[in-house]
Amino acid sequence: MQYPEAVEELIEYFRQLPGVGRRGAERLALALLDWEADKQRLFGLAVAKLPERIGNCPECGAIAPAGEVCAICSDSRRDGTLLCVVENMPQLFAVEKGNSYRGKYLVLGGRLSPLDGEDGSSLNLELLRKRASGGEVKEIILALSPDVEGRATAAYLAELLADAPVKLTRPALGLPAGSNLSFADSATISAAFSGRTDLK
Amino acid sequence: MQYPEAVEELIEYFRQLPGVGRRGAERLALALLDWEADKQRLFGLAVAKLPERIGNCPECGAIAPAGEVCAICSDSRRDGTLLCVVENMPQLFAVEKGNSYRGKYLVLGGRLSPLDGEDGSSLNLELLRKRASGGEVKEIILALSPDVEGRATAAYLAELLADAPVKLTRPALGLPAGSNLSFADSATISAAFSGRTDLK
Repeated sequence: MQYPEAVEELIEYFRQLPGVGRRGAERLALALLDWEADKQRLFGLAVAKLPERIGNCPECGAIAPAGEVCAICSDSRRDGTLLCVVENMPQLFAVEKGNSYRGKYLVLGGRLSPLDGEDGSSLNLELLRKRASGGEVKEIILALSPDVEGRATAAYLAELLADAPVKLTRPALGLPAGSNLSFADSATISAAFSGRTDLK
Repeated sequence: MQYPEAVEELIEYFRQLPGVGRRGAERLALALLDWEADKQRLFGLAVAKLPERIGNCPECGAIAPAGEVCAICSDSRRDGTLLCVVENMPQLFAVEKGNSYRGKYLVLGGRLSPLDGEDGSSLNLELLRKRASGGEVKEIILALSPDVEGRATAAYLAELLADAPVKLTRPALGLPAGSNLSFADSATISAAFSGRTDLK
């Protein structure tokens, strides 16, 4: 049996979300069909109105209510001399969950990835350069993922910011807290040993 | 950091889909924010317009384009003397994927589940009774899941249809095709042995 066209369309949209395959998309669409009509309409409008309701913070590139500065950039208790560069919003939230960083952010909006056609032109590089040379920021933490593309992006940014009057750092590489040493990969062990800290 | 209100709303809706927890809902919402504005609008409208575009087939209760008889009920090549009763659309699609059943369906819209407040009042029982006594149907296959609530529902339906001029059957219980006998549970083994078939 074919799904009605309206359902098939819905399945195609759900499939484009991360981690959702054809079967998962069918399951989500069929579950949605069991909702009350009003709830379907409200959910649909919540999605359809995203472009009007959500935009990017003009100071850091993070998601924010349309036309507004984001909650972090407008928070005067955050340390404006520290700027943490992340690839995307999930990474920003990950750093926030760490609950120790009190500086501000710059959301790149991606990473260099030549194979996927990302040459940096859609990244927030102009904004980063502006923040780096604006005078307020003293240190920029390049918190990109320590994988191949993340390192390449960090190296590219370090070059871009070579002349900016800021300190450039990156988070420490080492053993994840709570992990078992015997399961650590060799690159992590190597980084953890070369970056060892004094105990006394 | 708080999500903007529009994003928080979206997360709450995603959470109400099956198999989607808080983290998963955040991931889906953030992925959706990366879509083009036009695609967000089209997806939203595809959801919001479901109530106008999708309804229930008046003959079998399956999902169908609003106001229309579903594709199976309107297919004259399907055997109208066979009626397969399923709980919901995923079960109907499961039977269809078996690719051997060529009769028609009746979608109950649920199962008896007193603990969840389902006493049968929202099930398509009236439609079932009408089909059972309409004259065309000769056999009704109660293809409910062979678990506690499914069996209770099948027993209830069997009683409801006791006087109807139709044969009542249910799918065979037994070993799943391709399974390993040593992993079968005792109830399945027992059903498979008592329902054994002649080989010559």
